[in-house]
Amino acid sequence: MKQANVVIVGGSAAGFQAAISTARHKQIKKVILIRKEQRAVVPCGIPYIVGTLGSVEKNLLPDALLGDTELIVDEVTSIDREGKTLSTVGGETIGYGKLILATGSEPVVPKMPGVELQNVFAVWKDPDYLEKVHRALDKARHVVVIGGGFIGAEFADECRKMDCKVTVVEMLEHCLFVNCDEDFCIRIEDKLTEVGVQILTGCRVQSIQGKDRVDCVLCDRGEKIKADAVILAIGVKPRVDLAKRAGLSIGEKGGIVVDQYMMTSDPSVFAVGDCAEKYSFFTGKPIAIRLASTAAREARIAAANLVQPRRQRNLGTIGVFSTMIAGAAIGVAGLTERSAAEFGFDTVIGEAAAVDRHPSAMPGATELRVKLVFDKNTGKMIGGESCGGVSTGELSNCMAVLVAAEMTVDQVTTLRVGTHPALTASPLVYQIVNAGEDALTKFI
Amino acid sequence: MKQANVVIVGGSAAGFQAAISTARHKQIKKVILIRKEQRAVVPCGIPYIVGTLGSVEKNLLPDALLGDTELIVDEVTSIDREGKTLSTVGGETIGYGKLILATGSEPVVPKMPGVELQNVFAVWKDPDYLEKVHRALDKARHVVVIGGGFIGAEFADECRKMDCKVTVVEMLEHCLFVNCDEDFCIRIEDKLTEVGVQILTGCRVQSIQGKDRVDCVLCDRGEKIKADAVILAIGVKPRVDLAKRAGLSIGEKGGIVVDQYMMTSDPSVFAVGDCAEKYSFFTGKPIAIRLASTAAREARIAAANLVQPRRQRNLGTIGVFSTMIAGAAIGVAGLTERSAAEFGFDTVIGEAAAVDRHPSAMPGATELRVKLVFDKNTGKMIGGESCGGVSTGELSNCMAVLVAAEMTVDQVTTLRVGTHPALTASPLVYQIVNAGEDALTKFI
Repeated sequence: MKQANVVIVGGSAAGFQAAISTARHKQIKKVILIRKEQRAVVPCGIPYIVGTLGSVEKNLLPDALLGDTELIVDEVTSIDREGKTLSTVGGETIGYGKLILATGSEPVVPKMPGVELQNVFAVWKDPDYLEKVHRALDKARHVVVIGGGFIGAEFADECRKMDCKVTVVEMLEHCLFVNCDEDFCIRIEDKLTEVGVQILTGCRVQSIQGKDRVDCVLCDRGEKIKADAVILAIGVKPRVDLAKRAGLSIGEKGGIVVDQYMMTSDPSVFAVGDCAEKYSFFTGKPIAIRLASTAAREARIAAANLVQPRRQRNLGTIGVFSTMIAGAAIGVAGLTERSAAEFGFDTVIGEAAAVDRHPSAMPGATELRVKLVFDKNTGKMIGGESCGGVSTGELSNCMAVLVAAEMTVDQVTTLRVGTHPALTASPLVYQIVNAGEDALTKFI
Repeated sequence: MKQANVVIVGGSAAGFQAAISTARHKQIKKVILIRKEQRAVVPCGIPYIVGTLGSVEKNLLPDALLGDTELIVDEVTSIDREGKTLSTVGGETIGYGKLILATGSEPVVPKMPGVELQNVFAVWKDPDYLEKVHRALDKARHVVVIGGGFIGAEFADECRKMDCKVTVVEMLEHCLFVNCDEDFCIRIEDKLTEVGVQILTGCRVQSIQGKDRVDCVLCDRGEKIKADAVILAIGVKPRVDLAKRAGLSIGEKGGIVVDQYMMTSDPSVFAVGDCAEKYSFFTGKPIAIRLASTAAREARIAAANLVQPRRQRNLGTIGVFSTMIAGAAIGVAGLTERSAAEFGFDTVIGEAAAVDRHPSAMPGATELRVKLVFDKNTGKMIGGESCGGVSTGELSNCMAVLVAAEMTVDQVTTLRVGTHPALTASPLVYQIVNAGEDALTKFI
């Protein structure tokens, strides 16, 4: 029987990070990572296989990152928590000191007529499957993307780069509406429209039609959209069958219940990433945010707590998203104005826009807009949204730190930032600070 | 006699920001800004006049930003603090309720032989003077930059873009050595060298030689460097004559003494920007950091305190620098490993490098290195350095927030960040977090 101090089940972002961070602590001698797939894809890179990258091969997680961790390609069928062993499809029994479950998530496949047709694809994190998707999209002329969230919008943008006629069908009022306020959604929708993507919002797909292969998509308002291929991008659900069978508790959002140390109901078993239940930083309640960055963070916390119990706590998920659609980057950290209202916050909003270079004659200058959400009662910043050029990604991370540090409007207004002609806005119009000042005057 | 609720003296970054932020508070009815110059330049943009921008005109602060603030072009000669009035060269007397001094700084001109020769230029923030500099550099074939700090390095890079043969002479061991650790200095020196700039470090200029016009520069080690033009970039000193004559206290680093509310020894007079004394966030002691971003921050604080006394406090200067030299961006927030040691900190260092896109096949992927400095005793992050692509600017601001929020190594390691293929590193190698993890293992 194989035996390791730490065994990790799952080899996407959470599993990889758990292995890397665990290995960094020299006290832990033997680590095994078990995954089903021969090769592991970079989850956030999946849409880019279609256009920008051009192959699945270019979107693989390099196994070299695993270092001395033993990689086993196999599927775990059951956990004996009493005996602290795992059994696999391949007939292995593997003993563990601590177990980290990183079994991830899988796409939600709606029960709608025609979903089983050829060339209707969900976004499985499986390289072989994705190669099939890539081949089909490569030949397709008309693509329908069902679901206009981040992944859907990214797929749409990549497919149009390949000269497909692309239609996005979104049930809600706007694309990205779960994560962004309306004005930011509209900005991205406008960008997609500009590059030729057709967007149908407030629209439900009734059925996918075709003989063997998809031929068209029928919507509830009567639209009939030609389609050589369909991408289903309506969300993911945690993969928790293994945990369930092992008797671990499952939470209301479908993830494995964990405490602030990423420990499950069994003190020898941790759960991290999409398979683990998430709790809001703002309310402590379960929420359905599943991101590779969140997964990696949880894996790092679990790894630190393996070495020194209760060394690191997860005080909740803030939710930090960013993407680049049709040349426009967008970033969101924490609550939007709308989600803050849904959570019961009274808010004060601050807004600012300016070019991201100074003077504005500097090459590459792009308008960058920032919107900040403050809690009216405490003055604390609880969210931020931005859109602009490539720096928007790191700017969103800066906003995430402001939220995590519970900075007040006065602290945001007096932020110490560096500014440079070729890299940022002028200090006189630095967007986060200016949005803070805009809010400040509304507090008085 | 003219009269205003608030009078601001000085029209560079600090004065401009004071006017903008004061005007944002509707309670203040009348604001006057007095500056000497007909036109005001963007201070950080000055080196870019030479190459990237190509004219002084493209590097002006737009007076439109001043809105309803009355702009008076004149020079203040004295302050009657008792009577709360100012007198000007133009013969005006102007009454104030509150006075904000934003008189800025001026270049240090060393007392060395030949400094008075034609085509030897200091970096005066005066558009007419800078037009002269621009014309001379436009014709020059051989340029010597004395001083290899940020401004010197930027001038060198811009002059070489204009096909000048450029030599930087730096007294210290490395260019940028006041602000960066050695490895980061070397990185920038290598970049400058690659693009053809000659760098002489540990080298003092003995004299500048020529008949009427500069001809060459003589160094203490015997080097004789041909020069059609010389740029003196050895630092700035606060402009405090007016304040001194008015009897305001001056601090040990030469700035006007202010309290945490940016108030001088006179409660009706505030001082902000380069003319005001700076105090370290880390020790509370006076320090000689003078930056437009710091100036703007102080101006915002003063403006907030005009409306609501003691609304905002300045808990000290962190120092956040960024620049882009020969295609490589560099950013520094807070203490370097070396300056932390000089300040008496025991430190733990964390380092990480990775490309700033993921997977690495994404277009535009550039290596981005991060070095973090933690206080060994408290675990708090006290500084960060980075170099990479354009996102380095906002990443440095993120590091500055971590320092300001006194985040510990555990908090840095469990940072909530967003990651995206086209915008940031992978979550598995996100540089700030990975540098935190690197440090974490050294704390144990």
